[in-house]
Amino acid sequence: MTRAAVVGSGSWGTAFAATMAHAGTDVVLWARRPELAAQVSAGRNDDYLPGVELPPGLRGTTDVAEALDEADVVVFAVPSQTLRAGLAQWAGLVPPDAAVVSLMKGVELGTTKRMSEVIAEAGDVEPERIVVVSGPNLAREIALRQPAASVVACVDELMAERVADACVTPWFRPYTNDDVVGVELGGAVKNVVALAVGMAEGMGLGDNTKASLITRGLAETSRLGAALGAEPTTLMGLAGVGDLIATCMSSLSRNHTFGVELARGRTVEEIGASLHQVAEGVKSCESIAQLAAEHGVDMPIVGAVVAVVRGRVTPQHMVGALMGRSLKSEAD
Amino acid sequence: MTRAAVVGSGSWGTAFAATMAHAGTDVVLWARRPELAAQVSAGRNDDYLPGVELPPGLRGTTDVAEALDEADVVVFAVPSQTLRAGLAQWAGLVPPDAAVVSLMKGVELGTTKRMSEVIAEAGDVEPERIVVVSGPNLAREIALRQPAASVVACVDELMAERVADACVTPWFRPYTNDDVVGVELGGAVKNVVALAVGMAEGMGLGDNTKASLITRGLAETSRLGAALGAEPTTLMGLAGVGDLIATCMSSLSRNHTFGVELARGRTVEEIGASLHQVAEGVKSCESIAQLAAEHGVDMPIVGAVVAVVRGRVTPQHMVGALMGRSLKSEAD
Repeated sequence: MTRAAVVGSGSWGTAFAATMAHAGTDVVLWARRPELAAQVSAGRNDDYLPGVELPPGLRGTTDVAEALDEADVVVFAVPSQTLRAGLAQWAGLVPPDAAVVSLMKGVELGTTKRMSEVIAEAGDVEPERIVVVSGPNLAREIALRQPAASVVACVDELMAERVADACVTPWFRPYTNDDVVGVELGGAVKNVVALAVGMAEGMGLGDNTKASLITRGLAETSRLGAALGAEPTTLMGLAGVGDLIATCMSSLSRNHTFGVELARGRTVEEIGASLHQVAEGVKSCESIAQLAAEHGVDMPIVGAVVAVVRGRVTPQHMVGALMGRSLKSEAD
Repeated sequence: MTRAAVVGSGSWGTAFAATMAHAGTDVVLWARRPELAAQVSAGRNDDYLPGVELPPGLRGTTDVAEALDEADVVVFAVPSQTLRAGLAQWAGLVPPDAAVVSLMKGVELGTTKRMSEVIAEAGDVEPERIVVVSGPNLAREIALRQPAASVVACVDELMAERVADACVTPWFRPYTNDDVVGVELGGAVKNVVALAVGMAEGMGLGDNTKASLITRGLAETSRLGAALGAEPTTLMGLAGVGDLIATCMSSLSRNHTFGVELARGRTVEEIGASLHQVAEGVKSCESIAQLAAEHGVDMPIVGAVVAVVRGRVTPQHMVGALMGRSLKSEAD
């Protein structure tokens, strides 16, 4: 039987752990807080997935060494900007032949590294063992066993298949792929686009405006992908446009909700204090803008979100500027 | 001053006529029914755009010869399957140097011709004068002057620019393009995908499922586009993914609504009788499936929608089959 450890008990870490347990994998979920670990063992996660019943096989623990012991699959699902510090503690406990999975969708501030790069560097893990999972996967819907598809990417196809086998269920369909860069960029940039779309929604704008912003967001993600060597087809697939659509249109998305609240005049600090979990895009917009600048890629939506998050312009000004760009041809 | 005639007074024909009037174009809107023509001249279209105030410059008429007289831009916005019969009456009245615009999103049953091809053939219009307009353009939002972008495509760029100039306003941004085939296919196939997404929604499925269906729908649209010579970038832009997202996610879309009602167990006939306007996808799914077969293109979502519309399978069966396809790699 495959053994898996999930490090991080937010909504997506917990939903993915539950999916693996349903798939017949022996899963231990690590939580920092003892009461949360106990809840998971009792079949609940009231903070992050209220009302969802977790499978009986899923166990919670606060002991990371116990969780990682003899794991075939190690999954990291912590806030992106805390990964490096976490790995300093955990790296020595990861079994040397385990698949190391990132569920995280961000780019590290300062270094502009993707999460797989941080795992390779701070976790001392070979790229052939690093797997990223991303797609139109709103955690709550997955935990409720609604049909969803996802992409499992690794430069080593056999390692991707090991992870896909560990999580496949009748309602969760993983597709393997070798384009780690494309899958990670799709996941990271979509959070920033979702902030912009949320702002448009919060201003009372309709589906035409939102669909236009999503389309432009896809175009700028594709430009960044091309500069970093991603496959164009990846960004046209589930981990690109699929995830972008799910995140930008759903009221279950934290980034989307954060954007709506920004447009209603609340500050980043106020909204951050009232949400339980991190809105990744609020942090990653800065590092993605930096990454784009390093590669000479024009990303106007990301740039505009940075300006709003820093309080330099209002959401109203931002959306007006984005929709009013006077382009002659769509390709410009 | 540019003179424009719009033939067809449904929601999109009326909204586009209003946009041109706001852009400073002299616009006459043709309606079959005298009371509707009179309403338009009085600034309303209660049947198709209830509660919307139309611009004072917009005039309605039931006299198609008066509408088309000396028009620089002639716009057709009638149900796709009635275009050929209409052109038999109207073609001789279209000024020989006018731009002839299609707002229609369908493929003709029997012939599998796109609307621009029907205009060329039945209207005896040179391709250099045929312009198609498509994008994430829910008619009601445009009529309410919410920000939107659109694509104006013609093989002759100057003709595309003439039409773009006739409809550009601060809230409606047309982008020119020379890929007539790609723009028309994006507009036609998205209605069929919206039916499938509506069915998923009507079954209570969430945003992960809907986003996956949209992503797969984009992939099959792109395959058909490749077979017919469309530019891949067109389908990644406003007239492809942009329109697909707006139509599939919005409660304002008739095709989406039609799919929701199908999933609730109503028949095609019952829903058709209760909606004021045609859901293009219900007709076009058959002709698009035929077009795909002629070109050897696999379009599983279109095929599944045909089966539901013909009453051969239930929406529940269809969505289950689409989400459960056992593919190994996303690209298969």
